[in-house]
Amino acid sequence: MNGNGRRTVFFISDSTGITAETIGNSILAQFEGVTFDAHRIAFVDAPDRARAAALRIKTIYAQNDERPIVINTIVDPQLCEIIAESGALVIDVLAPFVGTLELELGTRRSGAINRAHGMVDFNQYEARINATNYALAHDDGIDIDYTQADVVLVGVSRVGKTPTCLYMALHYGVRAANYPLTDEDLEHDELPKRLQGCRARLYGLTIDPLRLAQVREARRPGSAYAKLERCQRELVLADKIFRREHLPSLNTTHTSIEEIGSKIMAYLGIEKHMF
Amino acid sequence: MNGNGRRTVFFISDSTGITAETIGNSILAQFEGVTFDAHRIAFVDAPDRARAAALRIKTIYAQNDERPIVINTIVDPQLCEIIAESGALVIDVLAPFVGTLELELGTRRSGAINRAHGMVDFNQYEARINATNYALAHDDGIDIDYTQADVVLVGVSRVGKTPTCLYMALHYGVRAANYPLTDEDLEHDELPKRLQGCRARLYGLTIDPLRLAQVREARRPGSAYAKLERCQRELVLADKIFRREHLPSLNTTHTSIEEIGSKIMAYLGIEKHMF
Repeated sequence: MNGNGRRTVFFISDSTGITAETIGNSILAQFEGVTFDAHRIAFVDAPDRARAAALRIKTIYAQNDERPIVINTIVDPQLCEIIAESGALVIDVLAPFVGTLELELGTRRSGAINRAHGMVDFNQYEARINATNYALAHDDGIDIDYTQADVVLVGVSRVGKTPTCLYMALHYGVRAANYPLTDEDLEHDELPKRLQGCRARLYGLTIDPLRLAQVREARRPGSAYAKLERCQRELVLADKIFRREHLPSLNTTHTSIEEIGSKIMAYLGIEKHMF
Repeated sequence: MNGNGRRTVFFISDSTGITAETIGNSILAQFEGVTFDAHRIAFVDAPDRARAAALRIKTIYAQNDERPIVINTIVDPQLCEIIAESGALVIDVLAPFVGTLELELGTRRSGAINRAHGMVDFNQYEARINATNYALAHDDGIDIDYTQADVVLVGVSRVGKTPTCLYMALHYGVRAANYPLTDEDLEHDELPKRLQGCRARLYGLTIDPLRLAQVREARRPGSAYAKLERCQRELVLADKIFRREHLPSLNTTHTSIEEIGSKIMAYLGIEKHMF
């Protein structure tokens, strides 16, 4: 094949499949010329489930010229062997490193299935849920007491504040609030009063006007709120505030929620760990 | 070392660090006896940043007996070499598989940095934001039109419905609604009217009574709502509904949000892909 074809890919895991899909997407993203038809097979934690997965892969193989690719995070050698019998190109993305670490740490792995996404520590869970509730309560200026906030996202309506806050809260337990700049704020010559007490934790979001108009139009078709001129005007004024107040800011147009969140945390030095 | 010590770990990435931290956590979770002090160094996409990262690792190494472990998702060999000069045990978790796939696909990688979490497809972004807005609007019975829902989570208050819905929406673009069982619903002999039209998409959540009391107590200290007897009673009645109506259900007590979401999607056959 010439690298411009299609390939079927299976993300296979003895647990949620999140690690398999995450690393799989990262590897596959290196090959922009190839289209991948991806399928997730999660909770393959026993021989019968491994055999069912192998059969599904074999069936696809029989219908295609090219052999399927399996991104596998199962560590148990017995289950891996059953998957390998499918004839697919199996890429074991955890097993080799577990071996390396066994040598380095001078201890054997605990033998558990991948528990990275299955463990629940009550205190951590509490922190995570509290952060999520915090983000929900401090969304779009509903509750404007920001004393507890790790970060306050500032920007005009529909710039991407809410999903970014929810992402940081759910994934990192970051207490992320957001403040929508109102018409009044935009006309003002100083930072909105409510934001003045937490200057070091403010982060501005902006977006291309065309994109903003498109997002607002989808939300409120035909509204004045979605007009390109209005979007342009609001964004220019918001940007003026960011520059005048020396707030860090980021254009969200071509940036994923993950990347926005990661950049904000890196900038503000928030060293929380991923759930 | 005997496997019961501490080790410093760095998750290093040319992009967000999400893949490095995800796979790193999965590998490290195999070694339950070791305590890992983990640090994320993201956006290492140029030689000066790689040198800064290497210096930080070297500094930690100088303060510790054991060499640090680096979980590295950078693919660029030049940058990887700089990181390796730190003297840490560097585990490259993407590069080897990219080589394997280059052979299999008969094409070279595109040479881009890890773009898996940086790409934005407008339509996909739209689907993701719409799903998140859907989850927010259909949270705790605020909007009860479930015709568009991919799944409706059912359970008593504080059982874990909201974070699970937000997780599925943000990560998989799943339109997840949730319905809190009220006292009236719990006393009733039939499924709440509003749920009768979407029986095949219902999924019940339950939790251990002690845990529920603890969660409610943190939220409303000293309230009747948080009393253990009340929690027990509500959960028994909810469970009765799940059994009588043959609804699938899951106990969330020892289950992470990721695992709950993955199990629900696997059960209902929702084959959406991760963002």
